[in-house]
Amino acid sequence: RSGKMAKSTQLIDNEVFQAYATYTAIVLLKMMLMSLVTAYFRITRKAFVNPEDTASFGKGESAKKYLRTDPDVERVRRGHLNDLENIVPFVGIGLLYALSGPDLSTALLHFRIFAGARIMHTFAYLIPLPQPSRGLSWAAGYAVTFSMAYKVLKTVLFL
Amino acid sequence: RSGKMAKSTQLIDNEVFQAYATYTAIVLLKMMLMSLVTAYFRITRKAFVNPEDTASFGKGESAKKYLRTDPDVERVRRGHLNDLENIVPFVGIGLLYALSGPDLSTALLHFRIFAGARIMHTFAYLIPLPQPSRGLSWAAGYAVTFSMAYKVLKTVLFL
Amino acid sequence: RSGKMAKSTQLIDNEVFQAYATYTAIVLLKMMLMSLVTAYFRITRKAFVNPEDTASFGKGESAKKYLRTDPDVERVRRGHLNDLENIVPFVGIGLLYALSGPDLSTALLHFRIFAGARIMHTFAYLIPLPQPSRGLSWAAGYAVTFSMAYKVLKTVLFL
Repeated sequence: RSGKMAKSTQLIDNEVFQAYATYTAIVLLKMMLMSLVTAYFRITRKAFVNPEDTASFGKGESAKKYLRTDPDVERVRRGHLNDLENIVPFVGIGLLYALSGPDLSTALLHFRIFAGARIMHTFAYLIPLPQPSRGLSWAAGYAVTFSMAYKVLKTVLFL
Repeated sequence: RSGKMAKSTQLIDNEVFQAYATYTAIVLLKMMLMSLVTAYFRITRKAFVNPEDTASFGKGESAKKYLRTDPDVERVRRGHLNDLENIVPFVGIGLLYALSGPDLSTALLHFRIFAGARIMHTFAYLIPLPQPSRGLSWAAGYAVTFSMAYKVLKTVLFL
Repeated sequence: RSGKMAKSTQLIDNEVFQAYATYTAIVLLKMMLMSLVTAYFRITRKAFVNPEDTASFGKGESAKKYLRTDPDVERVRRGHLNDLENIVPFVGIGLLYALSGPDLSTALLHFRIFAGARIMHTFAYLIPLPQPSRGLSWAAGYAVTFSMAYKVLKTVLFL
């Protein structure tokens, strides 16, 4: 028993992996938050896409008018999709990077910049802030993920 | 050799990790199924988005009329995107959770509720069932993922 | 110290895992490239979606005309979403597959077909090539992911 359990906890005892786990949980929770923000805007703006979602507003034309797009809802949805497009590569490449034996301080720098950049990106998208706020925060997260991918490929390349 | 191979199989010999692997494979296969359902509705409803996909229906106007949106196709696509938004956090956070040393029974409870909730969500979306069926199944998967993230951050927090 | 470091590098010393890491980094980088292609088409076609992105083109009506959809931009975005829908299952199921102890040659065959299929899919989508180019490259990646999921479930099934 102890042998098996020990194995399963050793990865999680590695400090670089702990940092990866922490920042991955944070950025995934931040991405999940976008669902709640979408729901909030759908309800307050009364802008739905599925007929069954407007049933509580009555039947027929009175409910149908709530089946519409709203600029605020669409903005959150674009932010959510942008999260998916950027956080998925971070989670996948970040895991391989954490296993590739980087220095703890270098790894922390990568993870912190990425998490900070994505939180900035969300504020820049939702407020919205004037460009290039959103562009730069997107680029920072992108560059950090690219840098981790480079380290992974340099360490393990096996084609 | 045996040392290296042993290491690589030890993670997979852990029961919590086996459960994670099983439920992750199931929900990812379920998500992949959405592509087939989309293709089915595109073909039966004759509703395509790429001009090259309608070439077999002839040229010019006769093919162009099939470049249109269809409510059934759009419904499946929304279900597919909702899967991506919710299954990605489950796969990422679930992996870290499985490595954080939870009780097997607690882990199984989390994984089973998530998989059941996402399968329910798909039926609720595609049939469609009246609300709050879809809302509740979405919320159950969301809550379970949040609970796993809490356990991960409590175990490994390294900022 | 050496004990802990050794553990963290053992997974990465496994050749199947090295191959998984290599091909996962490649397909995730390919997916990330879609963001740059989208930005390229948005700028050259002057087709934006966020008002704050057109501020450099002046104010009022002169900028508003660039808030529009463009067929090339939409095409790249569809390719990007298709990547997400297919590369996410590959990354998740591929990790479990790599840990399930497959033969190196079998694993390499799976990873190479997937990466090749997704690169083909991108060319077929963006050029675009006549069907069934895009359909077949999509199906090849899908089949390979399905095959890995089958191996995972056969090895670890724990419901």
